[in-house]
Amino acid sequence: MEKNLEEIKETAWQGFADGAWKKEINVRNFIIKNFTPYHGDDTFLAPATERTKKLWGKCKALMQEETRNGGVLDMDTKIVSTITSHKAGYIDKENEVIVGLQTDKPLKRALQPFGGIRMAETSCKSYGYEVDKEISHIFRTYRKTHNQGVFDVYTPEMKLARHAAILTGLPDAYGRGRIIGDYRRIALYGIDRLIEDKKKQHESISGTMVDDKIRLKEELAEQIVALNEMKELGTIYGFDISRPAMNAREAVQWLYFGYLAAVKEQNGAAMSLGRTSTFLDIYIERDLKNGVITESEAQEMIDHFIMKLRLVKFARTPDYNSLFSGDPTWVTESIGGMAADARPLVTKNSFRYLQTLINLDPAPEPNLTVLWSKDLPENFKKFAAKISIKTSSIQYENDDILRVAHGDDYAIACCVSSMVVGKEMQFFGARANLAKCLLYAINGGVDERLKVQVGPKNRPILNEYLDFDEVMEKYDAMMEWLAWLYVNTLNCIHYMHDKYCYERAQMALHDRDVKRYFATGVAGLSVVADSLSAIKYAKVKTIRDEDGIVTDFEIEGDYPKYGNNDDRVDELATEIVHRFMDKIRSHRTYRNSIPTLSILTITSNVIYGKKTGSTPDGRKIGVPFAPGANPMHGRDKSGAVASLASVAKIPFEDSQDGISNTFSIIPEALGKDELLVDGAVLTMNTGCTECTVD
Amino acid sequence: MEKNLEEIKETAWQGFADGAWKKEINVRNFIIKNFTPYHGDDTFLAPATERTKKLWGKCKALMQEETRNGGVLDMDTKIVSTITSHKAGYIDKENEVIVGLQTDKPLKRALQPFGGIRMAETSCKSYGYEVDKEISHIFRTYRKTHNQGVFDVYTPEMKLARHAAILTGLPDAYGRGRIIGDYRRIALYGIDRLIEDKKKQHESISGTMVDDKIRLKEELAEQIVALNEMKELGTIYGFDISRPAMNAREAVQWLYFGYLAAVKEQNGAAMSLGRTSTFLDIYIERDLKNGVITESEAQEMIDHFIMKLRLVKFARTPDYNSLFSGDPTWVTESIGGMAADARPLVTKNSFRYLQTLINLDPAPEPNLTVLWSKDLPENFKKFAAKISIKTSSIQYENDDILRVAHGDDYAIACCVSSMVVGKEMQFFGARANLAKCLLYAINGGVDERLKVQVGPKNRPILNEYLDFDEVMEKYDAMMEWLAWLYVNTLNCIHYMHDKYCYERAQMALHDRDVKRYFATGVAGLSVVADSLSAIKYAKVKTIRDEDGIVTDFEIEGDYPKYGNNDDRVDELATEIVHRFMDKIRSHRTYRNSIPTLSILTITSNVIYGKKTGSTPDGRKIGVPFAPGANPMHGRDKSGAVASLASVAKIPFEDSQDGISNTFSIIPEALGKDELLVDGAVLTMNTGCTECTVD
Repeated sequence: MEKNLEEIKETAWQGFADGAWKKEINVRNFIIKNFTPYHGDDTFLAPATERTKKLWGKCKALMQEETRNGGVLDMDTKIVSTITSHKAGYIDKENEVIVGLQTDKPLKRALQPFGGIRMAETSCKSYGYEVDKEISHIFRTYRKTHNQGVFDVYTPEMKLARHAAILTGLPDAYGRGRIIGDYRRIALYGIDRLIEDKKKQHESISGTMVDDKIRLKEELAEQIVALNEMKELGTIYGFDISRPAMNAREAVQWLYFGYLAAVKEQNGAAMSLGRTSTFLDIYIERDLKNGVITESEAQEMIDHFIMKLRLVKFARTPDYNSLFSGDPTWVTESIGGMAADARPLVTKNSFRYLQTLINLDPAPEPNLTVLWSKDLPENFKKFAAKISIKTSSIQYENDDILRVAHGDDYAIACCVSSMVVGKEMQFFGARANLAKCLLYAINGGVDERLKVQVGPKNRPILNEYLDFDEVMEKYDAMMEWLAWLYVNTLNCIHYMHDKYCYERAQMALHDRDVKRYFATGVAGLSVVADSLSAIKYAKVKTIRDEDGIVTDFEIEGDYPKYGNNDDRVDELATEIVHRFMDKIRSHRTYRNSIPTLSILTITSNVIYGKKTGSTPDGRKIGVPFAPGANPMHGRDKSGAVASLASVAKIPFEDSQDGISNTFSIIPEALGKDELLVDGAVLTMNTGCTECTVD
Repeated sequence: MEKNLEEIKETAWQGFADGAWKKEINVRNFIIKNFTPYHGDDTFLAPATERTKKLWGKCKALMQEETRNGGVLDMDTKIVSTITSHKAGYIDKENEVIVGLQTDKPLKRALQPFGGIRMAETSCKSYGYEVDKEISHIFRTYRKTHNQGVFDVYTPEMKLARHAAILTGLPDAYGRGRIIGDYRRIALYGIDRLIEDKKKQHESISGTMVDDKIRLKEELAEQIVALNEMKELGTIYGFDISRPAMNAREAVQWLYFGYLAAVKEQNGAAMSLGRTSTFLDIYIERDLKNGVITESEAQEMIDHFIMKLRLVKFARTPDYNSLFSGDPTWVTESIGGMAADARPLVTKNSFRYLQTLINLDPAPEPNLTVLWSKDLPENFKKFAAKISIKTSSIQYENDDILRVAHGDDYAIACCVSSMVVGKEMQFFGARANLAKCLLYAINGGVDERLKVQVGPKNRPILNEYLDFDEVMEKYDAMMEWLAWLYVNTLNCIHYMHDKYCYERAQMALHDRDVKRYFATGVAGLSVVADSLSAIKYAKVKTIRDEDGIVTDFEIEGDYPKYGNNDDRVDELATEIVHRFMDKIRSHRTYRNSIPTLSILTITSNVIYGKKTGSTPDGRKIGVPFAPGANPMHGRDKSGAVASLASVAKIPFEDSQDGISNTFSIIPEALGKDELLVDGAVLTMNTGCTECTVD
């Protein structure tokens, strides 16, 4: 038995360079020891095979049928989705090189009630389906859900802040997502080796048993169950993934089974894939070298794999979809970037992944993300630019900054959240509305739209004209409250998510002791910066309703606006981010996770604007905020570079979870070739949608 | 609406003396302000009515049928027991003054899988039933159980210690029990008032949300759900228990619905009732005074109530039953005792409860327990003695000691665990085998029966003759390990019980901030005391097997034996209890509960003995231990008083959860009238059975 496994490993790993990865679970080491950087151009790439065209044709037809059908083709109403809940499902079995579906039929939405039974029922109902009565009974009587747990512990203040939309998009009715399993481990090691490792981790927790340790130990036990179920998932499709993958096709297939297990178990807001292309390239290179496969076959595998990722769908409510202009899954794959030893992590397979946008048409999913470095091979830069121009379907992140924080094996979850694969995860926290918070400071905690006390009963501003120092003092106090409430609300959410909807499949593909980020976010930054600038540099008069609540403002004179590389206002933006982050940091976070901040609303800024009254910058009630850290629409009048420079001033240390600047690339806008500005992580708008429900 | 409730309250509380109880949930205050001590004799008591005889006849017939049927009459296999899971069930509707059954038929065992699905399946299977496949699937796939949770986090060391029986009877496969809801609250206040109170408690938890607070807040939310379900349970039987009880019959009925909710939800090892007789007497006195009922009707209510308690049964495995000589439910009711103001809490209703043993025949359940004080009215003392002699069905506890620790509204859970009703609860912890621990000290942690290393690899004793100082030093170190492992094992169990099998109905009838006891226990005390005495005062030679493991002993000379009021050995017993308790205290306990210790095996001492090798006191392998703190059989040769005096030396501070001394009362044994000895809480053997599964 033992010898057998040794033989299998020898075959599976034949030709791979030795390293620490053989002794321990260490995919990064395997990659560094074995990958082949590619500096060449795109001429080696193969077009779609006949098989691929046929298969993709079927997928497209299904997708069109889905659209015709009102957005959903079919839904499970009886089978609760678990890793092993369904028999094998195929699109077109004989043409599929890579297999595996979330349910037994393509695009049939799975029933995932662990996050919340009401959400599952509403999703079904809105498409004319009804969840089986027995299932509803089970999840209302015997099996509590994440959503129920959260609402059991929300304070009236939390509910009110949520209702007033000063806290928004909280993951209390849907899966938090933003956790990336290291799916590559399955291909490299096989499930059995991973189970062995997890068993050791499980055993390692002994000694004095306090709550924290009991929780982790139970989670490890759950992870082992999930790994066993993944093995069974392989069996359902006729594969033995207990052992390492023997060749490229198996490697893709094994890796995909891991991801499939995750999406069968979790309906997370962002179910990202990780950083797989260069890892898989090592297997493809070996097979190509051995003459086992051709380039066309290699591309076919990747095309089929990507096709599968495009079919990943969740049962969601129309509310969710309309907010997000679709039902995004954020299957983000991170491509490229530089290794710590200065070699580019670009391989032929990095090209192949991007080539899928040609072979299969452009698409927002999977969210192909290039980790951009100034040192990337020129040919790859050119190819990425070419595909970007052709398909508008690539996202870029600044590897030169992220690498400093995370090393060379991180990936992006959702749109900009970076984390080391298998070693870091995130407690996703959506956003606090800083613009509304400013209005609360002015109105002594009374909501300007609902006209009810939401924040603390601080002294409101009574003067007709706003005084900068007074506003700043009161704003600081109100942010203090908001940061406190926000952290505690998230503490409740993540406690309950772990209790009722733990991501055992994804966490099974992590180390024992992961670094946890506590990801907060803010919305309305440019509105706040401009408002404070107006108060400081112009004269802002308050307009009050009959109860004395400030509901509008009149600005007399001009003021410097954020987005023009003008330090007078840019420093205000920086200062607010810095202060809010410091206030967040002052609180106890769930599981001692590390607080981070993001500034990255991309589409839900419309909703935030709708729910926020008129602001001192002259923005009227209901008018959308600028997305993310963007300057307000049309106020950045000094050109694109100045606009980018303003955003770039926001310190990464205070917003480690990412700053987004939605930016349409029209060559003339920049006026020169420079694409990325130091100091900011840029998300180019790839038609991608927001990552939270509001 | 508001006025309506006020009117209802006025009617319900008419004639009751005012007090703090009207403004806050405070049953004790209500009792103290309103109860009528009774100093008279038993001549007022009424015999069983025709209705009672008829009804009890039916119950007896059912019980006999149950016995003929192999121990179980019928079992639920499809309906998971919850507070509201069943329609109304009756024995003989028109003759039942107090109604309510655990399921829809008398003696039909409920299906309670939250503690463990395997346990539920095994119970069914052993009586020829099979749990519905869908239910098994639900509790194996979607709804984790307490048992699964515990085994997910046990360390190999814990499992081994459990297997070797150095830790025994751990509540990891069954409900921990030993929690008494204050069922009287329902009668006095009605459910709506209790919900209002719980809502305020729920709201009171705000501010910074850390794990502990989130847990408690969620529990309060669950308690509110349970209270609403109790109200529905009332409705199912045609009663509106949202309001206070209007008369005695309603008071008994309301109170019973609370208890019924608890046993429908929890299959706890000991589901005790509390201290209800004097509370109910207040209602009966009022009705008698108003001429609304006769004494015969009063007795009938109590008889019918007690009958219901006798029908409480759980689905248990034959293992459990054989260990416990039956399937005890420990419906312990505490009767009598003294009030803090020196009035006896004995009322006519205290007599009525005992009278049920005459009207309905003797029975071990409910476990009627007299809280004995030297100051109890003579007539009551005589009556209790008379009933004891006649029925052997009364348990006695020393109120004069317990009152010092708990005040005058405590009750006994199980056999000797005292707790203030509605204000204190217990995390039940079964027992550590101190006799086996002594053998581990001698053999360096190797189990003398299994011949495997279970304890730490401490240096074993190598000398042929045991040296007292060496043994004590090694024993101390081994107890150090055992106490540490024991506390951590219990931490795992209680964490998981709260997570997967929380007693929301019982805890709904508690205050917000309860005092939690962490109840540990020891077995084999007299074996240890005698062994150490033999080592110290005689010569003990070790007999070793071929591997050098000590498997037997030879004693040369005589030694003082525990149970003869001989300080030389009694002090050893005291010292061991004191040391072990101190070691328990040194560890972090779950939810910062207060460690206590009990010495109270009553029947499972046979099993402990079976699993423990020969000991240095001359006891041979497999020979039963003495029960609880009893001297070893036949070694107490100085008479009963000396025997009791030895036991009485064990300090209550080190064994606050109770010391039991199983003692058959044969008048000649004592030689005089003195029944109770200061310093020890005595449990007279009332045919009662052990309270743990081993």
